Amino acid sequence: MPTIEPTHEADFTLADEPLPLANGGRLQPITLRYAWYGDLDRHRDDVVLVCHALSGSSRAADWWADLYALGQPFDPQNSCTLCVNILGSCYGSTGPGSLDPRTGQPYGPDFPVVTIADIVRAQALLLDHLGIEQLRGVVGGSIGGMQALAWAALFPERVRRCAAIGAAPLNALSLALNHLQQQAIRLDPAWRGGRYTPDAPPLAGLSLARALATCTYKSPELFEERFARRPNRAGEHPSVSPLGRFDVAGYLDYQGQVFQRRFDANSYLAISRTMDLFDLGATPEEEAAILSGIHASVLLVGISSDWLFPPGDIRALGERMNAVGVDARYAELSSRHGHDGFLAESAQLIPLLAPFLLG
Amino acid sequence: MPTIEPTHEADFTLADEPLPLANGGRLQPITLRYAWYGDLDRHRDDVVLVCHALSGSSRAADWWADLYALGQPFDPQNSCTLCVNILGSCYGSTGPGSLDPRTGQPYGPDFPVVTIADIVRAQALLLDHLGIEQLRGVVGGSIGGMQALAWAALFPERVRRCAAIGAAPLNALSLALNHLQQQAIRLDPAWRGGRYTPDAPPLAGLSLARALATCTYKSPELFEERFARRPNRAGEHPSVSPLGRFDVAGYLDYQGQVFQRRFDANSYLAISRTMDLFDLGATPEEEAAILSGIHASVLLVGISSDWLFPPGDIRALGERMNAVGVDARYAELSSRHGHDGFLAESAQLIPLLAPFLLG
Repeated sequence: MPTIEPTHEADFTLADEPLPLANGGRLQPITLRYAWYGDLDRHRDDVVLVCHALSGSSRAADWWADLYALGQPFDPQNSCTLCVNILGSCYGSTGPGSLDPRTGQPYGPDFPVVTIADIVRAQALLLDHLGIEQLRGVVGGSIGGMQALAWAALFPERVRRCAAIGAAPLNALSLALNHLQQQAIRLDPAWRGGRYTPDAPPLAGLSLARALATCTYKSPELFEERFARRPNRAGEHPSVSPLGRFDVAGYLDYQGQVFQRRFDANSYLAISRTMDLFDLGATPEEEAAILSGIHASVLLVGISSDWLFPPGDIRALGERMNAVGVDARYAELSSRHGHDGFLAESAQLIPLLAPFLLG
Repeated sequence: MPTIEPTHEADFTLADEPLPLANGGRLQPITLRYAWYGDLDRHRDDVVLVCHALSGSSRAADWWADLYALGQPFDPQNSCTLCVNILGSCYGSTGPGSLDPRTGQPYGPDFPVVTIADIVRAQALLLDHLGIEQLRGVVGGSIGGMQALAWAALFPERVRRCAAIGAAPLNALSLALNHLQQQAIRLDPAWRGGRYTPDAPPLAGLSLARALATCTYKSPELFEERFARRPNRAGEHPSVSPLGRFDVAGYLDYQGQVFQRRFDANSYLAISRTMDLFDLGATPEEEAAILSGIHASVLLVGISSDWLFPPGDIRALGERMNAVGVDARYAELSSRHGHDGFLAESAQLIPLLAPFLLG
């Protein structure tokens, strides 16, 4: 399948006024890298905002290719989708690698704590710039799903439909596993408090963080099916050498190594914290008040084998939405892919998303 | 509850002949630190061997106190239990901290790969020395349960009853999580390929490994109940500072810090690998042949919320035992404690163990 290129790809920079951040402080200037697919002029009142996950970019057709293929929901011939790289990322929008105007140096570890709400408010400014008053829908998986939910909650008048897949506030075990990833990066001697130079980043720490994250993105069943207790396919002998690996260990190390070449450690920490902080209210009462303001129809999708965002947590969020009158529906992907099911299970996802978002 | 002291605590050293290891190589000399509780002379044909888990020691009443209390199954007034520190440990038996006779220096990272079978064969030599021909029973949780199973398989004539709690060959996800712990230790700049000095051990790496292990020893439900999404009780602000922790993160860091003071990184790696390698046959056919040799009655205990050794894996092992004619029974602790249920659920465990081992 050839990669579908964006119809338009650009940077939007807001320099004149600061973006106030939910937890204090401000960010100025901000740049948002964005891309749209399809005919924006024809679909300006009908745009679907596609929100990306931790390591994604604004090039949504790169990471959600099945949904952009000919005849599929986001086929640029028939729809217009917009995707915006999130604040904190290293793929074009303002993040830890951007210059801090106060110092003239990259923010690095001083990049402020950014929330999903901050990310969504920045996206709303881009929509103003593009003349998009109201979205037909907003959709995403994982951190992308958090953005979709925050859109519905923060801008009820601007969102008609909201689809969030594998997304809910993180539970305690998931917060724990995120913390351990953060600690792995900080353990790398190259970390240097986040003030590493571009030629000597903490690759091993980032790699270990990604390897742990990969465990949380997959399911025990899938690992058992793919690797079981086999020795690493490279021909290592775990029974003879302490450094000989099992196959699953070789796989995880490889995933880490691929990732360390394409991502930045300070960005990883920033987005990991953004993910940690996502909620729809700090208390049940506050959440109920916020949820009750949602006007959009909501589709929440859980993934049966997801242990990072257990389907029970997502179903429960749907029930809390229903309890305050939100038109929310829960559906579940039956999958062995774990959290990554939002990427791997297009054949199940498309028949859910297409009628909901475009019908 | 006051700590119950061993009746006898000693070192057994075998210097004259080497211990051949299952995966090649040999260990010579070997020392085993052991302890017994109760009257060995009176109970010599009636001893229960208690096997410890990763971070345990031969002082079984220290870590399984509930079972040693007055009137409980291992009350030294009424029974005799023996516990032997495992090879690879840092609590008295030969391990990476012991002197390698070839170099006169500690083995460190050159300590050979030791299997559960090696550990059990060494224990059998101690039993010969103590004049214990046959054990009334052998019991343990986690790696202790692996030893119990290996005893029944390797020395069918010497074991009447075998109780293994939360133990089975590790599945792929558990192998993966062990690997990431091993990598965390190796990421610490103080690791130095395992040739750290006693005054500069890789504390941060060992601490991170233990923090990840702690996640695998507990259950998602327990974490949710104890920590939910609360900020760290020390008064940190995860929403303001990238270094502000959630409560669960503070707990895990604390668990790591306590552990780093009491354990050795090379021992941790050695035992972690021993745990990885445990099986009862490399193929289904080999396993069936080995299991069919078991004479002991077997009690396998799963823990409902254990995700390191899922109860389904343990139940399946019991079914494979039954299929080759072993008198094996499966029981399950209903617990929110996860894998640690073998320590935390004495009130459920004692009524299972007492009639089985002592009845």
